Amino acid sequence: MLHFGKIAIIGAGNVSYTLCKLLKNKGIEPYCVLAKNPEKAEKVHEDLNVAAVSSYETVLESDLTIIAVKDDAISEVASHLVDYKGLVVHTSGTKSAELLNKTMRYGVFYPLQTMSKEREISFDEIPLLIYANSPDDVEMLSRFAKQFSNKIVFCDDEQRKAIHLAAVYVSNFTNVMLGIGDKLLKKNGLSLDVMRPLVMEMMQKSFDISPEKALTGPARRGDFATIGEHEKMLADNPDELAIYMILTDYIIENYQKNEKL
Amino acid sequence: MLHFGKIAIIGAGNVSYTLCKLLKNKGIEPYCVLAKNPEKAEKVHEDLNVAAVSSYETVLESDLTIIAVKDDAISEVASHLVDYKGLVVHTSGTKSAELLNKTMRYGVFYPLQTMSKEREISFDEIPLLIYANSPDDVEMLSRFAKQFSNKIVFCDDEQRKAIHLAAVYVSNFTNVMLGIGDKLLKKNGLSLDVMRPLVMEMMQKSFDISPEKALTGPARRGDFATIGEHEKMLADNPDELAIYMILTDYIIENYQKNEKL
Repeated sequence: MLHFGKIAIIGAGNVSYTLCKLLKNKGIEPYCVLAKNPEKAEKVHEDLNVAAVSSYETVLESDLTIIAVKDDAISEVASHLVDYKGLVVHTSGTKSAELLNKTMRYGVFYPLQTMSKEREISFDEIPLLIYANSPDDVEMLSRFAKQFSNKIVFCDDEQRKAIHLAAVYVSNFTNVMLGIGDKLLKKNGLSLDVMRPLVMEMMQKSFDISPEKALTGPARRGDFATIGEHEKMLADNPDELAIYMILTDYIIENYQKNEKL
Repeated sequence: MLHFGKIAIIGAGNVSYTLCKLLKNKGIEPYCVLAKNPEKAEKVHEDLNVAAVSSYETVLESDLTIIAVKDDAISEVASHLVDYKGLVVHTSGTKSAELLNKTMRYGVFYPLQTMSKEREISFDEIPLLIYANSPDDVEMLSRFAKQFSNKIVFCDDEQRKAIHLAAVYVSNFTNVMLGIGDKLLKKNGLSLDVMRPLVMEMMQKSFDISPEKALTGPARRGDFATIGEHEKMLADNPDELAIYMILTDYIIENYQKNEKL
């Protein structure tokens, strides 16, 4: 077999919705979407105009099953697929592929992107991290993935876990920094939006020339007068002050200070 | 007078270079650029094809002087401009406008953007934060600024300082997060570039729907199993682990945990 004929998706969350739309955009009709709760299945059917089911019978007729449920529920789902003949992949950044090793053919299909039901995202440039327990399935999964993205990365469990950990810093924690900025600006009658060009340019620059070379600011240039003033301004925000101090120390210890940027 | 006829720029760093290019792009020839060191003045002259000088005589003939030197040197520069008839502005995010109050007409012209000599940036959307000590000069400075950007924000010292502090979080500290991601990925033979679509989409999303609504990840959903696993993976990186822990606690304490995102 050169490609997966019938594709089943399990789950009714953000990842499941995004994958369904992705397939349909490429002219691939999902064979079925499984939502355990019949009411949820009905909603998926209405929202996405796909065949939605609430039991495994139809899933077992498919050639590829994509498990898009929360991490803790993957094992339970896999227990229904022990006799399944197709390839089973999960979509988790942290869970080992071996979680599926009671099935015959298994792997991982992890799109490295944040997804929500409301937002359309373009998949072309999104890295798809894939793994499978046989070379044939790596080949098939890779061919499947190439329909959606130019960036297919074969990753073992260790590498995928490292990527997921790094993503906490570069995505979740950067987001927290924006949240703190938002809070400090609101206190002064200003909107976070004023920061948009600065943030977008700084991120582009970090990727283009490296975060280390792009870094500016008082800690980078060893400007302790400004750091002291900032710490005073944060007197009423002890949590944000603690974050300011630990990150300022980190910069001072880890980056050269011999430039005025 | 309805506009500034002759514009002097003081300094030979990133901000000075960027402002020179900005003026020239709009067909405004800087009257002179002052670099104290004659060799540096020669270099500025060669690099930017502008009249570069190393003494204040020519500067005193101008109508607007933009001080683009490091914060600690602003006072010294201002001391040469006590009898100056034009408007003097500095470009610092942290220093009070009052640092220039020995001159007659003074203010601030602070472009909220990271600048480097090598990078061309588009100013159209960059917020220009302005202040002047007289309504007439606010009006003139505003008219001057509107030539370069659609986003002119009148800011007093307090507001500008709040913006500068917020910028440390949203620009410098986000950059540090990318640096840590880079380090963790390199350890596993991977490149930071794999993160680019995720980071850019997450930043866009934060500005579009708010950082709080955009936040995902193990801390946000209270996924302590993953947090524990991440902490184990960081055993050899005590500094990065400390940052992971403080930011994870911050998310748990400050954001709702009742969603699986």
